[in-house]
Amino acid sequence: MDACSVWGCLFIMKPLDTFARRHLGSSTEDQDAMVATLDYPNLEALIDDVVPPEIRDTQPLNLPKPLSESEATTTLRTMMAQNAVPRSFIGAGYHGCLIPPVIQRNILENPGWYTAYTPYQAEIAQGRLEALLNFQTLITELTGLDVANASLLDEATAAAEAMAMAMHGKRGRTFFVSERCHPQTIDVVQTRAEPLGVRVVVGDHETLPIEDTEGLFGVLLQYPTTDGAVLDYGSWMERVKAVKATTIVAADLLSLTLLRPPGEFGADIAVGSAQRFGVPLGFGGPHAAYIACTDALKRKLPGRLVGVSHDAQGKRAYRLALQTREQHIRRDKATSNICTAQVLLAVMAASYAVYHGPKGLRTIARRIHALTLHLAKALDELPGCEVGSHFFFDALRVTLTDTTSAAILTKARRREMNLRALDNQTVGIALDETTTVEDLAELFEVFGGDLNDFSNVVEDEEPDLPDFARRSTRYLQQEVFQIYHTETEMLRYLHRLESRDLALNQSMIPLGSCTMKLNATSEMVALSWPEVNGLHPFAPKDQWQGYQALFTQLEDWLAEITGFDAVSLQPNAGSQGEYAGLLAIRRYHESRGEGDRNVCLIPTSAHGTNPASAVMAGFNVVPVRCDEDGNIDVADLKQKADEHREALAALMVTYPSTHGVFETAIVEICEAIHEAGGQVYMDGANMNAQVGLCRPGKIGADVCHLNLHKTFCIPHGGGGPGVGPIGVAQHLADFLPGHRESGDAQGVVCAAPYGSASILTISWVYIAMMGARALTEATKLAILNANYIARRLEDFFPVLYRGEKGLVAHECIIDLRPCRDEAGIEVEDVAKRLMDYGFHAPTMSWPVPGTLMIEPTESESKAELDRFCDALIAIYGEIRAVANGEADRDDNVLKGAPHTAESVCADTWERPYGREEAAFPAPWLRAHKFWPAVGRIDNVYGDRNLVCTCDPIESYVEAEHV
Amino acid sequence: MDACSVWGCLFIMKPLDTFARRHLGSSTEDQDAMVATLDYPNLEALIDDVVPPEIRDTQPLNLPKPLSESEATTTLRTMMAQNAVPRSFIGAGYHGCLIPPVIQRNILENPGWYTAYTPYQAEIAQGRLEALLNFQTLITELTGLDVANASLLDEATAAAEAMAMAMHGKRGRTFFVSERCHPQTIDVVQTRAEPLGVRVVVGDHETLPIEDTEGLFGVLLQYPTTDGAVLDYGSWMERVKAVKATTIVAADLLSLTLLRPPGEFGADIAVGSAQRFGVPLGFGGPHAAYIACTDALKRKLPGRLVGVSHDAQGKRAYRLALQTREQHIRRDKATSNICTAQVLLAVMAASYAVYHGPKGLRTIARRIHALTLHLAKALDELPGCEVGSHFFFDALRVTLTDTTSAAILTKARRREMNLRALDNQTVGIALDETTTVEDLAELFEVFGGDLNDFSNVVEDEEPDLPDFARRSTRYLQQEVFQIYHTETEMLRYLHRLESRDLALNQSMIPLGSCTMKLNATSEMVALSWPEVNGLHPFAPKDQWQGYQALFTQLEDWLAEITGFDAVSLQPNAGSQGEYAGLLAIRRYHESRGEGDRNVCLIPTSAHGTNPASAVMAGFNVVPVRCDEDGNIDVADLKQKADEHREALAALMVTYPSTHGVFETAIVEICEAIHEAGGQVYMDGANMNAQVGLCRPGKIGADVCHLNLHKTFCIPHGGGGPGVGPIGVAQHLADFLPGHRESGDAQGVVCAAPYGSASILTISWVYIAMMGARALTEATKLAILNANYIARRLEDFFPVLYRGEKGLVAHECIIDLRPCRDEAGIEVEDVAKRLMDYGFHAPTMSWPVPGTLMIEPTESESKAELDRFCDALIAIYGEIRAVANGEADRDDNVLKGAPHTAESVCADTWERPYGREEAAFPAPWLRAHKFWPAVGRIDNVYGDRNLVCTCDPIESYVEAEHV
Repeated sequence: MDACSVWGCLFIMKPLDTFARRHLGSSTEDQDAMVATLDYPNLEALIDDVVPPEIRDTQPLNLPKPLSESEATTTLRTMMAQNAVPRSFIGAGYHGCLIPPVIQRNILENPGWYTAYTPYQAEIAQGRLEALLNFQTLITELTGLDVANASLLDEATAAAEAMAMAMHGKRGRTFFVSERCHPQTIDVVQTRAEPLGVRVVVGDHETLPIEDTEGLFGVLLQYPTTDGAVLDYGSWMERVKAVKATTIVAADLLSLTLLRPPGEFGADIAVGSAQRFGVPLGFGGPHAAYIACTDALKRKLPGRLVGVSHDAQGKRAYRLALQTREQHIRRDKATSNICTAQVLLAVMAASYAVYHGPKGLRTIARRIHALTLHLAKALDELPGCEVGSHFFFDALRVTLTDTTSAAILTKARRREMNLRALDNQTVGIALDETTTVEDLAELFEVFGGDLNDFSNVVEDEEPDLPDFARRSTRYLQQEVFQIYHTETEMLRYLHRLESRDLALNQSMIPLGSCTMKLNATSEMVALSWPEVNGLHPFAPKDQWQGYQALFTQLEDWLAEITGFDAVSLQPNAGSQGEYAGLLAIRRYHESRGEGDRNVCLIPTSAHGTNPASAVMAGFNVVPVRCDEDGNIDVADLKQKADEHREALAALMVTYPSTHGVFETAIVEICEAIHEAGGQVYMDGANMNAQVGLCRPGKIGADVCHLNLHKTFCIPHGGGGPGVGPIGVAQHLADFLPGHRESGDAQGVVCAAPYGSASILTISWVYIAMMGARALTEATKLAILNANYIARRLEDFFPVLYRGEKGLVAHECIIDLRPCRDEAGIEVEDVAKRLMDYGFHAPTMSWPVPGTLMIEPTESESKAELDRFCDALIAIYGEIRAVANGEADRDDNVLKGAPHTAESVCADTWERPYGREEAAFPAPWLRAHKFWPAVGRIDNVYGDRNLVCTCDPIESYVEAEHV
Repeated sequence: MDACSVWGCLFIMKPLDTFARRHLGSSTEDQDAMVATLDYPNLEALIDDVVPPEIRDTQPLNLPKPLSESEATTTLRTMMAQNAVPRSFIGAGYHGCLIPPVIQRNILENPGWYTAYTPYQAEIAQGRLEALLNFQTLITELTGLDVANASLLDEATAAAEAMAMAMHGKRGRTFFVSERCHPQTIDVVQTRAEPLGVRVVVGDHETLPIEDTEGLFGVLLQYPTTDGAVLDYGSWMERVKAVKATTIVAADLLSLTLLRPPGEFGADIAVGSAQRFGVPLGFGGPHAAYIACTDALKRKLPGRLVGVSHDAQGKRAYRLALQTREQHIRRDKATSNICTAQVLLAVMAASYAVYHGPKGLRTIARRIHALTLHLAKALDELPGCEVGSHFFFDALRVTLTDTTSAAILTKARRREMNLRALDNQTVGIALDETTTVEDLAELFEVFGGDLNDFSNVVEDEEPDLPDFARRSTRYLQQEVFQIYHTETEMLRYLHRLESRDLALNQSMIPLGSCTMKLNATSEMVALSWPEVNGLHPFAPKDQWQGYQALFTQLEDWLAEITGFDAVSLQPNAGSQGEYAGLLAIRRYHESRGEGDRNVCLIPTSAHGTNPASAVMAGFNVVPVRCDEDGNIDVADLKQKADEHREALAALMVTYPSTHGVFETAIVEICEAIHEAGGQVYMDGANMNAQVGLCRPGKIGADVCHLNLHKTFCIPHGGGGPGVGPIGVAQHLADFLPGHRESGDAQGVVCAAPYGSASILTISWVYIAMMGARALTEATKLAILNANYIARRLEDFFPVLYRGEKGLVAHECIIDLRPCRDEAGIEVEDVAKRLMDYGFHAPTMSWPVPGTLMIEPTESESKAELDRFCDALIAIYGEIRAVANGEADRDDNVLKGAPHTAESVCADTWERPYGREEAAFPAPWLRAHKFWPAVGRIDNVYGDRNLVCTCDPIESYVEAEHV
């Protein structure tokens, strides 16, 4: 029956909950008005002048016809219903947990949290900065170490990062990894080690000839081991430290509520996952991993670090600390390309700890331990099972004497339970917060036991742990972990935090290169479904057929959009995508016997992660100059390519350029690289200017990463998660990241085979609802919006870096250096002043110091664009007043920004400008005013007096008064 | 297998996500501290002194052992999985619709909206007041009438309310109801008419001898009719108006986007449901019904009406208009007991209209109409089917010549489609927004058609409507319906509105008699499940087995808690519960041949709905005096009971009293009533003081209503929905409300058989997670909290109405009359000043003028109670300053309250007190300040210049400047 073929031709009968008109910010009328402002007859003519004709696609994208919002939800639900969600006892770093509903609803399902950007503008990000400080406190307290960052991508990459930290400043190139680490961790560390020339020794730590291992710079142990054992590492660690190697322990966070923490038995660095602190399994992610270290190592910590400082009025304030330490500044001196955190997940994990408190966490751990103890006793009594006598926390290693692991796993699956085969005769069982007494009984039956035969009840006493492993130190005594234990208090705390942050639910966040577009609810809903978020990443393949179908479709669609032949969804951040892409190039050259190709050309205008990633892939970075218009200096490029012809591995190029321009020479550039034997890596950060108009694969790129959290609607989550899949041409397809779960771990870059699988549903829904036509319209509208802003602002601020026809791509750069020269006003002053107008600043001083880069995206309405331009134009007037001498050069609305309610309402007001001018400089603010929670933050003070946990509140106060 | 019997005895193995500790606001330590403050050795001793021993229950409640949060969710999910959710084509006032995801997530699933209280304190409720004004505008625009209220409970009760309006001031007692009205509407109108002495004539309107119908005061027609016909009522209505009868039209709201509106063909009043504007079916509710009328009738409108006024600074502001018109003030002069609205649902419906705009709504309606047209043409060609030639909007009446309705319905059900049997040979089919072309084809097949034989495609033209029915007037041209059509804009608009309102996610809302306790997320989640919200209320019984199980359990539990024998869940508001309870008493007396018992004793302290409900039930109200302590004057009561011995029908009594005291004479009072032949109706508004401690049914009450939105955690939704089930003793069980769906419509009070069925899941989850012990603890803690507040405040404000031991029950009344005498400070000044401290005021001047009634509930923490007391004590200091002459009597922080950010930040500040004193009078405000959106609102101005829609903004502005 095909009703559509008879009746469906009638337009009026089509579903009406179409998505594109909800996603695209401006109506046709508003688009026409903007086009007219730009003196073009129509949008198409504008686009013709923006996109070089030689790269312009003439064919529409070959994608399925768009689904309506309800159709997309239904289709995804049907697809995901093919997944099975048995109880998981697999463990290996992924554990079931109970997400407190108040956290699920008010963080995970709340646009106030998930649409926020990375907290660079700290004055309007105090809520999530506080939550991240809670996270850092949680990690330092449980690991017993001094400093923790605001999270990393996953446990395996955290271990690789720790290895890189350990290398730092040492000459040795041997790294020992215990064979009892999680297998995926070992794999990821090995991938990372190879290009760096690090020899990885995997083995039994007890038999390692520590003192006789040449070049040993670090060791990695698992605690408890992947098969559950709690071992006494203390004296062994002493020996390692004696040879000046760095000790790294990958530790289960929850176990540390009962177990002696790594910081107390000699670890220099601890890594692990915070997933089981209330974050769904999600078939692998996203989760927040952690890394913590001793004070001595803190300046080597990768990623983001939140610190405490004070604002201009002396009020306590949070912000990102030690930013000069960040990798995007260090470029090819970097040892890591990590430039983000898993903020949303770290916030959830920290909130889980806040909600449970130390006593609650300990009780959860003790319950799991008690269940495990009971199961161990029961199994040990069973004929055919040996549990052994080692100590454990939540996981057992069961050796079978009468049957095989496969047989047991099959029996378990029939009961909708997943176990882990450690080898043919050994089964792993990991219990978690969701395990019930009934589950224990069923598990017992799987091994052939009968509950009725067993009643050797262990009494409810202290955990069965030896002295060396028993935690004696208290933890999480800070107030924040004591007072929000009822739902009412927790709800209000989360709401207070949320209300301090400016997110997309308040106003435009016009961050250049970050594509802060709509994160539609329809795209987000599936994250709350058990069949999406309840799967273990190592579940057997027949249980994730729904995911398989989604991956296949999404890979196909992304391949079509990018013009590539194959796609990997594994990289769980843009930086990981870069790294994976370069690894593919490296392995390709190696496969052709050209493994000595190791020069990577990178334009000076590139994002800092580019050189960092190149270094991680074992390449030597050779910079390529840019001309005055921000374009690659083609002559210099050709010369460099020629010069390094023998060793040329790759060019990394961003397109449109980091200056927001469609460079016309791109095809010529790619050809030059290929001619010299190199591969072209395209940075897909600016893909939002390309979709439907041109394709990296057709332009000449061999590999490209995509930021699904930019172009494809995954929300920024307040600073993570992101997803960075890569597309490659056919000749590179064999070198996409593997994973041991699919039989080949070559080039693996993530702990989970499909990275942050669960949020891939977001991009799937986006593409499914948009279809080819609307995706292309979105690109055109993004370009129109950027050009409209440029036109509206150009009389006030010089617009830099336009293309040949005087147009920009999807973002524009305005120059504020004249403001500094004429009025002493810095970019930062304008950024902070924008807060008073209710806006988040554009990207500051990148890629060009002294400028703002504005990217409006297609989702913003003309009304919002106008409001934003009005704000900048009003600020221009304020700057003129300073330049003219009408306003004080040092004490004016810009230097005094942002203005808090407290300061504007103070009884005394000694500023030379008015209170209303400070707080209500534009009419819309009287209808809706967003108040920055703190005034201008003192970054220097914070970095000089580094405090990265909630803990030493007293000492902080003291420090402030010293 | 019973694992628990072997291992489960160990406490440590029990699930840890227990709920009670999340719900109860204070830890044991904090409880002990409060008990100590009250000079009691322990909580039990305090309770012993609060609850009279003669009514105290000694046995614990017999309820199932509590489920953990995850267990409750799983259990409910399993239960609800027994419901089937076929496509519904039943219609009859209930239609499938697509809930825009941005509305579902950001309103329905957002505690910022659903935990708000009724917007009495308008300055901190501007968000939902604006949304309600949008609703009123939507209704007036679509109905073509002048004024609409902020919603009613359901279409049927709205029709009954309209009848009551029509009666007003007329002597006639005959009401005509078209037989083509929805059957449930006819039933509810008949129930309502009987006690009022109204004769209801049901029939064909065309044959009604209008001029010869004695006492005809009003008529009710359905438009389109329940079987889908669009009829020309114009000239008939003229004749009705000629005899001075009121014309009422029950109209489908969506149809009015295409059809001539009732206001244009002579309707004085229009009623209907806004459900299909994006509100889930919910197996009957909750939804927002509407009522609109001509300007001449506006002061008779029942329920809430939002109006426009201005604040002290002249800024536009919204508030509840014509409050003196409200029924709780008119007591037994009332013609309605309605004292609330369905705010949350009205907000959703209004937002649906805002999101779609007039063009979008019209397109939705046209699509449905086109689908219906196509189906009609197809069916009309089929042998054995006659569709007839009348005009329709979305519903068809199909007469079968070869088969029966039952056979067709059975065929349809096999395909998971529900149709409606209009009679044995006639089937009704109603299409809606969710209907697809594929559905049409399937429907066609159900009737024996084959799509391939049919290709008589109707061209896509204007709707097939005759001139009399074609809408020619424009609608919804107001700006708010034009500019929020993208998800980004809509999200921000909803967020702006939300941020103007103070809800439970911000701070305590200590409203006496309203029990603003935690609305936990676990209790709310099921509302998003299709198997809960997707069912039509008239679906066949085998499709709602899950609901049936839930109803049975919830009825059993409520019966156990109240000590009654039977429970009805039908009443969808507390007022409806009162009315249903009194009807049961009325029918009981009638069944015993004592139908002339018509005197209802009501203490003067009773809530205004009590006398209003009594009048609706046909009773004459005889007031009973109260003594100085607020207790019923037992002697007066006995005298009145004796005096009216022959005619005594009932006593209505609130327990604990409206003054918040456990009256010790309650048993004696009940006995006196029974002795005189009367029945005792207990108002359950204060049930939160009784649960687990005593039971209405054991105390002597015969019937009691419960406010599930108070004691049993249904959120207030910003002013609705509520649910008001009743419990009765065995002898009244036969007189509980019936419904035609269960075969007997006697005493039906609601359109749907189980009222607002979907939100019953909330109370089910609450009771299931709490269990007997924690429910009782909750009651004790509520009492402790109230007494703790009384103790903390008594040195500053006299605490009125304590029990014999000097204790209060679960709320306390503080007397502010001395403040007026000494400082000229009114209750209202204190209420508005509390906003500056970040709090919602307690109940103002009820039950005693010049007082505040404070009810903390068990969910508030000691810290929050202390913060609230600190605020009131600080305000006391501010009042003293006025009294002492330190502060100006007319211009002080209290009279100037609430202070908006705009006023405190103004360049000029001419008040005699400081800005910081105005805005930051307490330290916690510097950490988190909630700013009232407007200053003190001028109610008198608003009532004198009544504006109840967004429409005449220009005229409002004009009026303001006249």
